[in-house]
Amino acid sequence: MTERGQLVSFSIDGRARFGAVTAKGVVDLTERAGEYRDLRHAIEAGALRRLVDIAHRHVADHALEAVTLLPPVTNPEKIICVGVNYPDRNAEYKDGQEAPPFPSLFPRFARSFTGHGQPLVRPKASDKLDYEGEVTIVIGKAGRHIAERDALSHIAAVTLANEGTLRDWVRHAKFNVTQGKNFDSSGAIGPWIVPFADPAQIADIGLTTRVNGELRQDDRTSRMIFSFSYLLAYISTFTTLVPGDVILTGTPTGAGARFDPPRYLKPGDVVAVTAEGIGTLTNTVIDEA
Amino acid sequence: MTERGQLVSFSIDGRARFGAVTAKGVVDLTERAGEYRDLRHAIEAGALRRLVDIAHRHVADHALEAVTLLPPVTNPEKIICVGVNYPDRNAEYKDGQEAPPFPSLFPRFARSFTGHGQPLVRPKASDKLDYEGEVTIVIGKAGRHIAERDALSHIAAVTLANEGTLRDWVRHAKFNVTQGKNFDSSGAIGPWIVPFADPAQIADIGLTTRVNGELRQDDRTSRMIFSFSYLLAYISTFTTLVPGDVILTGTPTGAGARFDPPRYLKPGDVVAVTAEGIGTLTNTVIDEA
Repeated sequence: MTERGQLVSFSIDGRARFGAVTAKGVVDLTERAGEYRDLRHAIEAGALRRLVDIAHRHVADHALEAVTLLPPVTNPEKIICVGVNYPDRNAEYKDGQEAPPFPSLFPRFARSFTGHGQPLVRPKASDKLDYEGEVTIVIGKAGRHIAERDALSHIAAVTLANEGTLRDWVRHAKFNVTQGKNFDSSGAIGPWIVPFADPAQIADIGLTTRVNGELRQDDRTSRMIFSFSYLLAYISTFTTLVPGDVILTGTPTGAGARFDPPRYLKPGDVVAVTAEGIGTLTNTVIDEA
Repeated sequence: MTERGQLVSFSIDGRARFGAVTAKGVVDLTERAGEYRDLRHAIEAGALRRLVDIAHRHVADHALEAVTLLPPVTNPEKIICVGVNYPDRNAEYKDGQEAPPFPSLFPRFARSFTGHGQPLVRPKASDKLDYEGEVTIVIGKAGRHIAERDALSHIAAVTLANEGTLRDWVRHAKFNVTQGKNFDSSGAIGPWIVPFADPAQIADIGLTTRVNGELRQDDRTSRMIFSFSYLLAYISTFTTLVPGDVILTGTPTGAGARFDPPRYLKPGDVVAVTAEGIGTLTNTVIDEA
C-alpha cells in the first residue's frame, strides 16, 4: 500500500461514482468534489492530489466490498497497449526474428476491461483465455511530439492491468491482434489509480502475476525494453495524448500460452497482478453467460 | 446525391453543431432538435429520419462552404477498420500467403480523422502518406453475437472514409499496423451520414478514389470478400457494437503504395472518394505545421 492515495471509479445501486479508498473503506467524492464529472475530468483539471486531500477529511461511506469497482478511468479517449516489452518475450514467439527496433502497439476498447473484483469473462468463442499482468499509466497532460526528457511530466497516475487475451483469436487474420485483445470483459484495469509524483513510483518496481496463488510472471520495470519515457515520446509522434489516456506498458514472460502444454484460464481461476506501491488487481474467471 | 437526407456534424464560430445538408446549404438542427446532444445521441434514439424531416421544414442557415465539417460522428465509442477486403488486395502483399479465413481488423482513434473539406495532414515523421477510399457504416442498434441474417438491421447510416495511411509506419513493429493508421488527421470521414433504410444502398454500389482527378481505385461493394452482414456478425463475436460505432469496410486495389515507383500524396494533392448514393469526400493534403 502507498500513502499517495488511491482513487477509484465505482458503482453502487446502479449509479456511477468516484472516490478514494482509505483504510476504512471508500470515501465517495462524487458530490464532495462535484466540480468534476468523473476521474477523467479531475485528471484534466490536475486535481488528483486535491481529491486525495478531500478524502482524508472524511470517514468512509462504504466498505470496499460493498461497491462495484470499475476501471478507474471509465471513458478514456484511447487505450494503447505495448506488446513484447520485457526480456525473453520476443524469443517466446520463436519466429527467428530479432527484437524489433520500435514497440509493437495495439489499441483496446474500454469495454474489453472490467474492474477489480469483477468477473473476467472467458467467451463462448474460445477456451484460450490468458493473463498478462502490466503496469499501466494514465496521461495527465496533453501532448504531441513529447520529448523523452519531459515525458514523465505527462503522467497523472499509475495503475495495473490484466491484459487478458484470447490466444487463438489474436492470429485470426493476416495482420493485427485486434480480435483476441478485445473480447468484452476479457481484461481488467485497477484496482485504483495512484497519483504520480515521483519517477521512483515506476522506475524499478516489481511486477508479478499469480494464478490461484502460483507465481507465473515476475519481473521489474527497470528491465523494460522500451522505457516509460520512450513510449510516451514515441506514441506522441503519431497521436496527441490527452488527459485520461491509458497506456499498458507490456507484460513479462510467463503467460499461460508459453507453457507446454499451455495453461489457459478456466472458470474459477483467480488472477492477481501486483506491483510495488500500486497494489493488487484481482479477478476471478467466469464463462460468458 | 440521394433523397434520403444528409446529416452533418460541423463547427461554426468555434461551436460544435449538427444539422442537415440541403440543396441550399446547411440547416442547423442543434436547437431545432435540442433533445439530442449530437448525432451519436440522435442515432441512439433512432431519430435520423426525424432529423431529416425537421430539416425539410426549414431554410438553410449557412452555405455549406461557411461551416467546418467534422467527421459525422464526432465521438464514437469505437472505430473499426477492415483490411484486405477487395479482390487483388491480398495478392498486393506479395507474401505468398493465401487469403485469410477471417477479416483483418484494426482500430483507429477518432483524432486520426478529419472532416470533408478539411486538410489531410502529411506528418513530419513520414512522407509516405497514402489514400484508401472506403464505404463506411455507422451502427444504430447495439448488439453482441449478431446473426448474419439480422445484421443489416443494426446499421443506422452510411458514409465514406479516406483511411489515410503512413505506409512505412504500419510496419514499424513485429505486429499490428497501429502507428501508421493513427497519425492525427491523416484520414477523413464524411462528408455526411446518409440514413440507412434499404440494403440496396450498400449491396452493389460503385466506389472510386481519385487523386487530382485521376482515377486510382474503382470497384463495387458486391465484390467485397467479407460482406457487410458477415463483418457485423464476426465483429460482434468479440465486442458489443453500440450506436455510433463506425466500421470502415476496406479499400479496393490501387492505393499509391502499389505503383512502381509508389505514388504517395504530396501537399496540394486533392483526394476524392466517391460512392453511388452517398456522395464525395474530398480533402486536400497539407504538411504538418
